[in-house]
Amino acid sequence: MQIAVVLYDRVTALDAIGPYEILSRLPGASLSFVAVEAGPVRTDTGRLSLVADASLDEVPAPDLVLVPGSPAAPTGEGPIRQWLRAVDAGTTWTTSVCTGSLVLAAAGLLTGRRATTHWLAHDRLASFGALPVAERVVVDGRYATGAGVSAGIDLALDLAARIAGRDVAQSLQLAIEYDPDPPFDAGSPRTAPPSIVDNLRRNRHLMLDA
Amino acid sequence: MQIAVVLYDRVTALDAIGPYEILSRLPGASLSFVAVEAGPVRTDTGRLSLVADASLDEVPAPDLVLVPGSPAAPTGEGPIRQWLRAVDAGTTWTTSVCTGSLVLAAAGLLTGRRATTHWLAHDRLASFGALPVAERVVVDGRYATGAGVSAGIDLALDLAARIAGRDVAQSLQLAIEYDPDPPFDAGSPRTAPPSIVDNLRRNRHLMLDA
Repeated sequence: MQIAVVLYDRVTALDAIGPYEILSRLPGASLSFVAVEAGPVRTDTGRLSLVADASLDEVPAPDLVLVPGSPAAPTGEGPIRQWLRAVDAGTTWTTSVCTGSLVLAAAGLLTGRRATTHWLAHDRLASFGALPVAERVVVDGRYATGAGVSAGIDLALDLAARIAGRDVAQSLQLAIEYDPDPPFDAGSPRTAPPSIVDNLRRNRHLMLDA
Repeated sequence: MQIAVVLYDRVTALDAIGPYEILSRLPGASLSFVAVEAGPVRTDTGRLSLVADASLDEVPAPDLVLVPGSPAAPTGEGPIRQWLRAVDAGTTWTTSVCTGSLVLAAAGLLTGRRATTHWLAHDRLASFGALPVAERVVVDGRYATGAGVSAGIDLALDLAARIAGRDVAQSLQLAIEYDPDPPFDAGSPRTAPPSIVDNLRRNRHLMLDA
């Protein structure tokens, strides 16, 4: 199974690396980071580069494509949109994490489909024709989307079970010791203190341009 | 606050990227990825490079140092050990994720201290003079260690609260929508099916050389 994780300028690293850590270890999988051009790609914090080993053109037929999110997710016309439309015709799974679903939706791939995204971006997802669902992982046909940033880990475990079976998925969960125990119950707007939610809404530009 | 995340050949990416996504966003923090030499560093899967922007020599006095783990964590003599011993004298926090604690312990920095590591590596941690504790995050003085791979996220949120306060930590948790919901309860040897635990023990070389 050929897996392609799409990188682009200002990508959010954890959106990509959470799923990568699981999907790259699936039996028989070959995972590549791809970008418009091969080479280093700067992340949204400006403090890290991830290297795309291949250009989009070099990976024309992935079985699974994953688009991570960013404050500057590339929702306009351009080579990423063109490539996504072309490869989506042949994928087994077309997937995203966080605002990566905006990229898929803007390319017309989620029209009328149930999908999720970062909790701050549900309205934008709807504006591109998808049907936003406030769940951590949403699967509609061969389209699987994860909520904000860290949800990519849960998304990838779900996909791992569908692709390789429950035993493989559980083994990978144990390998990365994913037994989460956050010190606060503040990871969702439903559970975080209202003042914290309001403050992040006011500063949504930190997570989402425009 | 100067934060240094140490990279080295065959590092496990999520060990580093989970904490980075949180710690790099702390108010007033300046986070750098560092390695023996600046430049790309290949991860353990062979499918990704992360770029270290600085050499160890260029970051001689970090306030917080974080050592991620790897199947090939550098526990021998060498420049990383020398650098860790030197900078530890001035850190506010010396920290690790997964088998990164073996590197700290082998450098003599965890002798007699409570610490944690990947669940498969507790015996090795003890062999280096630390006191292994089966908890997800262990803080002993200014030494904070996380369990396997994904535990770096919980570690970083704990550190964020100690460094910048509960509100900042909760805000960062909400920003990365860390409201975990794994599809299985298999992330710990205490909860995973025994056959899965046994199988991973037999294949521990996948997670841990030697």
